[in-house]
Amino acid sequence: MPLLKAAIIGGGNIADTNHIPALKQVADRVELVAVCGRDLGKARALANKHGIAHAFDNTLALYDQCAPDLVVICTPNNLHHPQAMEALAHNCHVFCEKPPAISAQQARDMANLATQKGLTLAYNFQLRQTSEWELLMRCRADGLLGDIYHIKAHFLRRRGIPGWGSFTNKAMQGGGALMDLGVHVLDLALYALDYPTPDQVLGNTYDLIGKSGGKGLMGDWNPKAFEVEDAAMAYLSFPDSVSIMLSASFALNTQADKDRNLEIFGSKGGVKLFPFSLYTEVAGELADIQFPYLEETDSQLKNTLAFLDACEGKPSTVCTAEQGAILQEIVERIYQSADKR
Amino acid sequence: MPLLKAAIIGGGNIADTNHIPALKQVADRVELVAVCGRDLGKARALANKHGIAHAFDNTLALYDQCAPDLVVICTPNNLHHPQAMEALAHNCHVFCEKPPAISAQQARDMANLATQKGLTLAYNFQLRQTSEWELLMRCRADGLLGDIYHIKAHFLRRRGIPGWGSFTNKAMQGGGALMDLGVHVLDLALYALDYPTPDQVLGNTYDLIGKSGGKGLMGDWNPKAFEVEDAAMAYLSFPDSVSIMLSASFALNTQADKDRNLEIFGSKGGVKLFPFSLYTEVAGELADIQFPYLEETDSQLKNTLAFLDACEGKPSTVCTAEQGAILQEIVERIYQSADKR
Amino acid sequence: MPLLKAAIIGGGNIADTNHIPALKQVADRVELVAVCGRDLGKARALANKHGIAHAFDNTLALYDQCAPDLVVICTPNNLHHPQAMEALAHNCHVFCEKPPAISAQQARDMANLATQKGLTLAYNFQLRQTSEWELLMRCRADGLLGDIYHIKAHFLRRRGIPGWGSFTNKAMQGGGALMDLGVHVLDLALYALDYPTPDQVLGNTYDLIGKSGGKGLMGDWNPKAFEVEDAAMAYLSFPDSVSIMLSASFALNTQADKDRNLEIFGSKGGVKLFPFSLYTEVAGELADIQFPYLEETDSQLKNTLAFLDACEGKPSTVCTAEQGAILQEIVERIYQSADKR
Amino acid sequence: MPLLKAAIIGGGNIADTNHIPALKQVADRVELVAVCGRDLGKARALANKHGIAHAFDNTLALYDQCAPDLVVICTPNNLHHPQAMEALAHNCHVFCEKPPAISAQQARDMANLATQKGLTLAYNFQLRQTSEWELLMRCRADGLLGDIYHIKAHFLRRRGIPGWGSFTNKAMQGGGALMDLGVHVLDLALYALDYPTPDQVLGNTYDLIGKSGGKGLMGDWNPKAFEVEDAAMAYLSFPDSVSIMLSASFALNTQADKDRNLEIFGSKGGVKLFPFSLYTEVAGELADIQFPYLEETDSQLKNTLAFLDACEGKPSTVCTAEQGAILQEIVERIYQSADKR
Amino acid sequence: MPLLKAAIIGGGNIADTNHIPALKQVADRVELVAVCGRDLGKARALANKHGIAHAFDNTLALYDQCAPDLVVICTPNNLHHPQAMEALAHNCHVFCEKPPAISAQQARDMANLATQKGLTLAYNFQLRQTSEWELLMRCRADGLLGDIYHIKAHFLRRRGIPGWGSFTNKAMQGGGALMDLGVHVLDLALYALDYPTPDQVLGNTYDLIGKSGGKGLMGDWNPKAFEVEDAAMAYLSFPDSVSIMLSASFALNTQADKDRNLEIFGSKGGVKLFPFSLYTEVAGELADIQFPYLEETDSQLKNTLAFLDACEGKPSTVCTAEQGAILQEIVERIYQSADKR
Amino acid sequence: MPLLKAAIIGGGNIADTNHIPALKQVADRVELVAVCGRDLGKARALANKHGIAHAFDNTLALYDQCAPDLVVICTPNNLHHPQAMEALAHNCHVFCEKPPAISAQQARDMANLATQKGLTLAYNFQLRQTSEWELLMRCRADGLLGDIYHIKAHFLRRRGIPGWGSFTNKAMQGGGALMDLGVHVLDLALYALDYPTPDQVLGNTYDLIGKSGGKGLMGDWNPKAFEVEDAAMAYLSFPDSVSIMLSASFALNTQADKDRNLEIFGSKGGVKLFPFSLYTEVAGELADIQFPYLEETDSQLKNTLAFLDACEGKPSTVCTAEQGAILQEIVERIYQSADKR
Repeated sequence: MPLLKAAIIGGGNIADTNHIPALKQVADRVELVAVCGRDLGKARALANKHGIAHAFDNTLALYDQCAPDLVVICTPNNLHHPQAMEALAHNCHVFCEKPPAISAQQARDMANLATQKGLTLAYNFQLRQTSEWELLMRCRADGLLGDIYHIKAHFLRRRGIPGWGSFTNKAMQGGGALMDLGVHVLDLALYALDYPTPDQVLGNTYDLIGKSGGKGLMGDWNPKAFEVEDAAMAYLSFPDSVSIMLSASFALNTQADKDRNLEIFGSKGGVKLFPFSLYTEVAGELADIQFPYLEETDSQLKNTLAFLDACEGKPSTVCTAEQGAILQEIVERIYQSADKR
Repeated sequence: MPLLKAAIIGGGNIADTNHIPALKQVADRVELVAVCGRDLGKARALANKHGIAHAFDNTLALYDQCAPDLVVICTPNNLHHPQAMEALAHNCHVFCEKPPAISAQQARDMANLATQKGLTLAYNFQLRQTSEWELLMRCRADGLLGDIYHIKAHFLRRRGIPGWGSFTNKAMQGGGALMDLGVHVLDLALYALDYPTPDQVLGNTYDLIGKSGGKGLMGDWNPKAFEVEDAAMAYLSFPDSVSIMLSASFALNTQADKDRNLEIFGSKGGVKLFPFSLYTEVAGELADIQFPYLEETDSQLKNTLAFLDACEGKPSTVCTAEQGAILQEIVERIYQSADKR
Repeated sequence: MPLLKAAIIGGGNIADTNHIPALKQVADRVELVAVCGRDLGKARALANKHGIAHAFDNTLALYDQCAPDLVVICTPNNLHHPQAMEALAHNCHVFCEKPPAISAQQARDMANLATQKGLTLAYNFQLRQTSEWELLMRCRADGLLGDIYHIKAHFLRRRGIPGWGSFTNKAMQGGGALMDLGVHVLDLALYALDYPTPDQVLGNTYDLIGKSGGKGLMGDWNPKAFEVEDAAMAYLSFPDSVSIMLSASFALNTQADKDRNLEIFGSKGGVKLFPFSLYTEVAGELADIQFPYLEETDSQLKNTLAFLDACEGKPSTVCTAEQGAILQEIVERIYQSADKR
Repeated sequence: MPLLKAAIIGGGNIADTNHIPALKQVADRVELVAVCGRDLGKARALANKHGIAHAFDNTLALYDQCAPDLVVICTPNNLHHPQAMEALAHNCHVFCEKPPAISAQQARDMANLATQKGLTLAYNFQLRQTSEWELLMRCRADGLLGDIYHIKAHFLRRRGIPGWGSFTNKAMQGGGALMDLGVHVLDLALYALDYPTPDQVLGNTYDLIGKSGGKGLMGDWNPKAFEVEDAAMAYLSFPDSVSIMLSASFALNTQADKDRNLEIFGSKGGVKLFPFSLYTEVAGELADIQFPYLEETDSQLKNTLAFLDACEGKPSTVCTAEQGAILQEIVERIYQSADKR
Repeated sequence: MPLLKAAIIGGGNIADTNHIPALKQVADRVELVAVCGRDLGKARALANKHGIAHAFDNTLALYDQCAPDLVVICTPNNLHHPQAMEALAHNCHVFCEKPPAISAQQARDMANLATQKGLTLAYNFQLRQTSEWELLMRCRADGLLGDIYHIKAHFLRRRGIPGWGSFTNKAMQGGGALMDLGVHVLDLALYALDYPTPDQVLGNTYDLIGKSGGKGLMGDWNPKAFEVEDAAMAYLSFPDSVSIMLSASFALNTQADKDRNLEIFGSKGGVKLFPFSLYTEVAGELADIQFPYLEETDSQLKNTLAFLDACEGKPSTVCTAEQGAILQEIVERIYQSADKR
Repeated sequence: MPLLKAAIIGGGNIADTNHIPALKQVADRVELVAVCGRDLGKARALANKHGIAHAFDNTLALYDQCAPDLVVICTPNNLHHPQAMEALAHNCHVFCEKPPAISAQQARDMANLATQKGLTLAYNFQLRQTSEWELLMRCRADGLLGDIYHIKAHFLRRRGIPGWGSFTNKAMQGGGALMDLGVHVLDLALYALDYPTPDQVLGNTYDLIGKSGGKGLMGDWNPKAFEVEDAAMAYLSFPDSVSIMLSASFALNTQADKDRNLEIFGSKGGVKLFPFSLYTEVAGELADIQFPYLEETDSQLKNTLAFLDACEGKPSTVCTAEQGAILQEIVERIYQSADKR
């Protein structure tokens, strides 16, 4: 089987530390041929660092000269839609950083075009590839949870407003804590439920700390330029009375600096994801089950492999274009709910 | 000042262990003259045990013969309304066990009649009198929390469906985990916010474990007679974007057997109530503040005193008739939201 | 069903604190009619204390005057055999304190006579009635352990040579740590294996600390009068290659003052008994299972009930006469192995 | 003093990471001249990596061309005997990996030839060189333990069947957990007792988990090719009633993944080896003594030095040929005992 | 031997809960004949409660009517001197509460009169009778500490200004934290050194918190009536360069509510008293020694026995009149040093 | 602004690992031109290693050829005075390692000359630049401590007598644990009090362990050549009754190997420095405040920057010449006090 030709679009940190190393580890399936970035010099430097042949500051030139089979999009959120549409138009599979886009319509358009073209569009929610999540899915499959009916999902930082990048810029990011952090745990919660669409969505967003300033744990941020939510709270209700409570924050007066977890409640058992704990009955007694030997995995590598499997038409656990569209619609409905207030 | 004459209506456990002992400790303000119960023999035995002069199985006889100034209602939830209305009609102040009633209309009627008669009607939410809650209110008053904008409140049991009493009987209790447990933490959450009425309410209720049966930690329950919710989840959104997440369960596949707590998030500081922890900034650094010497208090005694203060027109922290009506309406809206599903 | 008439033989501490209280709690099945002790005054005092009608210092008088249906033997080890034989001869069921006797032949004779008379003879190994052991047996029955092939059992004290009683007297006790402590965990180990007889037994006994003296944690003992083993170590090998490692000590230079536990290793799962932990695989991962809500039980009461069930021909978990004979034979083989050295 | 010329026989992992680095650190006493391996290319690569002059795939060529003074044998267990005999025949001192051999007779022959030739044959039991063991020996010498009469020794893995190498091959390894792991702690236990020969040996071996398969913590093993014991239990009884309980496992349903320890019980004090704890009496009270500043040592380097000391006729703590023969005989007696069942 | 007749002077709490119960436990040596208190009614009530024959409000009447052999003085500090002098004048042995007196001259006079009369005067420093202190003295005697050269002694409360009694009254108590708490640990420190007299004393006292008021953990105190030191710090230097650092507080901004300990540093070993830990070398390694089985003792009973032994001329560990005089002089020198500032 | 030319005097470890790396990080303010050491070869090697142009073994040549603007003195204590005086005479700012000198007069002379020349002389007490100390100073400035009245400061090692260098040489070092370790925490304590001069000083020094020998945790030391104190204890009393307790040791029979801390007691709050904890009242309750997100800082770099700020006349937290003279006088008074004994 010939190697797939791959190109990176967006030459920032996530390309350098996540996607390029992962792709280089799967050299038996992929040839990484080009990097395309806003700044040609930086793109070339990155390409050289990783031994990649070509560098561009222009995607059309990239498609023209390299004819990649797949591209990985690592640009700010507002560029995901135009760049993915262009890539699909050039018959490329697309592996896009999260969140899918900055509006529901964008994500829907992207999914539709991928379907129409018969190409794979997928999103990089790599928490799906942790040992904990894999075990959750195995427990679910083995019937250890019974029917899942409620999930609490949160991704909270105490003072984790990034002091760099465009994270507080509404136009480029489309939102704040929910868009950047909340989507990770929302994707998992939805995945555990086979990605349903909610009947009702209720949410609120906040920016009191972000706009006030203070001590930062991820660098110093500028409260005057803080345009997004520092916290988002939401409740989703689904058919059959299934429900999700979702909390996300860049800044919140809570204990932990970083607190990311899910609790999944089923009729037979409940799971706390990190560290993985299963609460159920064994031999007629209430039992707490720990799994002390779960391995840490390279979840980026595994998610890249899952994307490649999808491209090749194999079963895959990567977040699909359709799932991304559902998720993006929920995010939009949370913001709409919050905006009414 | 002459002593207030008090009578107990409902001769069960809560009267025996909470209200009568508390009233006997305030003998300088109250004379406990009678106990009225369904079963005259039991009522008399309880009266004898505590040295109370009279026993009745008929409230009209009680009012006729003893003319109490106040009554304490300790009967099942469905009797709160008729007995409180009757007591107010007989010009008695009323100290009623929680929840206020089994419908919003009942609680509203009760509040209206109390206002009309110029009498005190109050509910026994005694968590308000814990040292932790008093400290929370002092921190709030001292501005240590800034503006409160989000509260997470939960009262969860893993397998705490009571194996006795009428707790699983819908007609007598009006509901399950929300009605019995959730109201305690909901009252606190609302109190921290000065008891606003929500714009929107969204909730779900569950009964999968309750109806399936299994190991019980509060005796064995009968899954066939389980008519109420074993868990309730809700989200409340208030004006100015304030929000509450509420969780209550009799049975849930979670770690702790009993987990009752509130997290109160404000712009300056956040509080976890048990054990009381304040998360804020001190001297420009993120600070975690513990209070290792908070005393345990006799919260029933303090709540009884707060009720007496209210009867005498003094400032009081007891849950008022008006607050009870707001709370009961929220409970009803949660059930209505859940019933749609 | 008429009440069984019961008598206590041996008016010491174990009768006063364990057997009499347990029998009084089952007054719906047993009438406790007499106490028989060496010293008539003490026997009478004990009878009075517990409201028992008769006291004797002579078992023949007891049988003659009271005609009990069952007796409980609470005397030193060397009296178990003669008193049990006499009781069986008088057509009484016998509930005998552990160990069964001081020789294998005695225990065998007792079992034979019980069989011949069609009476119940049972031994008071009450650890069988702990929640932990009941859970072990349920796990075994549910197949969670697979085939059990090795058990480590120990009952170790660091300096627990009793400073009172006859515990260091060889003639009265028949042995030391093995006879007094080791038999408890040996009974459990054998019970988990359905009470097989070992192919081979190898053991050693020690008395260096007991004969040297030093600090005592259960009073001061007299090293000059120390005639028994302060520690016993043994290895038992059974058909199908099943094995047991057994350790017992009154005195040993080890960390814990009291360390009593069993580890049961099976092909599917392994159990550590205190606190109960199950080590196995769940959903394809190695799992540690804890049971945080095991109740403490009144194991003496439960064992007394188990004995009564046996007397009435019902299924029972009490240690039978046959099991006691097997256990006593193993104890004797351990001492014989040790004596060769 | 001229440098000793050394050669490595067996170019695998243990040579690469243990023996060669240790020998290079003692360049003032030893010149490492050659590596001999089955595969010449690999041997040469290893030699090059460490700057060693010669590489062979043939021991006769090695002896012929290099005439080493000593060899280090790092091959599979079944080659220890032929290679050691050959080396001794070529007048080389021999430092052999553990276990000594795969039969008692082999180890006895090797010891006899070494004696006959006046050469040093020693085995690499490097736990002897840990700070903990050195402290144990000092405590013993200072009389802090009194007479040692019982030792519990275990080396247990929960699921540590190696997924590589020949560890499950009976012909090459001679056995499983006992041969590979148990010998380490057996050597220490025997050493603490001055290496006596047991009067009696009783043991059992198991393979239920190894043959069933499942989750592996040291790679995945093939249950179909599993020919050795996954666990071995044994009891050794020595003159003067001294005893050892020995447990070793590749796979066992126990808590810890790796649990390697010894408990040494003496009349004056007892020691738990890891972390080193001494249980004794101080000033008339029971005392627990910890040693918080024990250094970690390079135990391989120290054992290599001990071997060199032995070669030079100096006092040494290395495991001698005679000790190795005694140990191998005990291992064989354990297997023989187990095979009867 | 005839019983000693004993009387209690001062009918407060310390008499009721400490001295009278202890004396009643030694009824084989002492007959407790009278209680003398300021208020005759209370004295009689206390006497009745404990079955003591006589009650007085006048010591002369006591001596006249009862002729006691010994008295126990349980009155405020300023009465210790007059009452002890009077008791000695009436030929009574005296067991006096701590501190000895409120001036050095008083304590010296008391000691001189006791010597002159050949009577026993002793002080109730009962920490001397704890298991920890007894073990310290045994370790010292066994040479485990070598030469003791420095001691750190502290008795600190965070907010433990008693809200009752005369503890903040300078005239009655003679001082604050040093006089009430510091003397306990100072007595131990001096005792460990064989009660030397210091060459130099340097100290400071404080009252900033006591005079400011705030949260109290031993009731509420009145900052306006706070006349004593809330904290005292001192350094004592003795011949041979031995030194003591002493810290005592009723109120200090420190973590623990009650922190009472001594560290004793010697050339061979050092001890932290609570929990007892010995830091030394064992077998050439630095060793930490714990004593997990120290018993809790009834230190008041043991100190009362020690006083009786002293009265009978036997060796005793009770604080003697001479030691009390030395201690009181040191306390006075600390206050004098502090007053200069 | 032109770069300052800097030279290092003393080419040992502290220059190599602390001062040179720090100076190289501030290359925008300083040009490091030379290293001067006793041994020219070593000085040159150090210069080469760090890319410094010149090396000398003679300070006069250094001043002659390089004309530095500042020098950093990294030599043994007895050379601080002559080298600083010489440097000031050559119009250089001086950054001198601690302690300032080996006598009070030396430090006073150095300060006077610096003042006279208008140059900066400062000492490298880098603990001032830890996050903990900066937070302490902010808390003090914010009034959170009220008036500080007592400080306990200690720097204790259990067996930390350095086995290298001149640390035990009285002539070169001027003293032992106090001179090397105690000065660090004494500087902080004085700094918290605005560097007052004590009214009274009382101290003791010891050398029993140092002269006896034993296990070392910082290499092996020679007890025969041990000329300094292994421990020093002191008490300082200042105007307004402020006091400091100071403890320092190279060797002491205490638990921790290294225990360095300060407790600062004020009228409003108290601080334990490591980990930083503030004990005070919040909202009327006793509160313990932790700061879980204090960053570790490069305190050497920050102290070097503080020195440069001082050279440029900016506000600075570096230890000044005047402070150094006060500190050195206190050290001398402690030794004088100890020498009387």
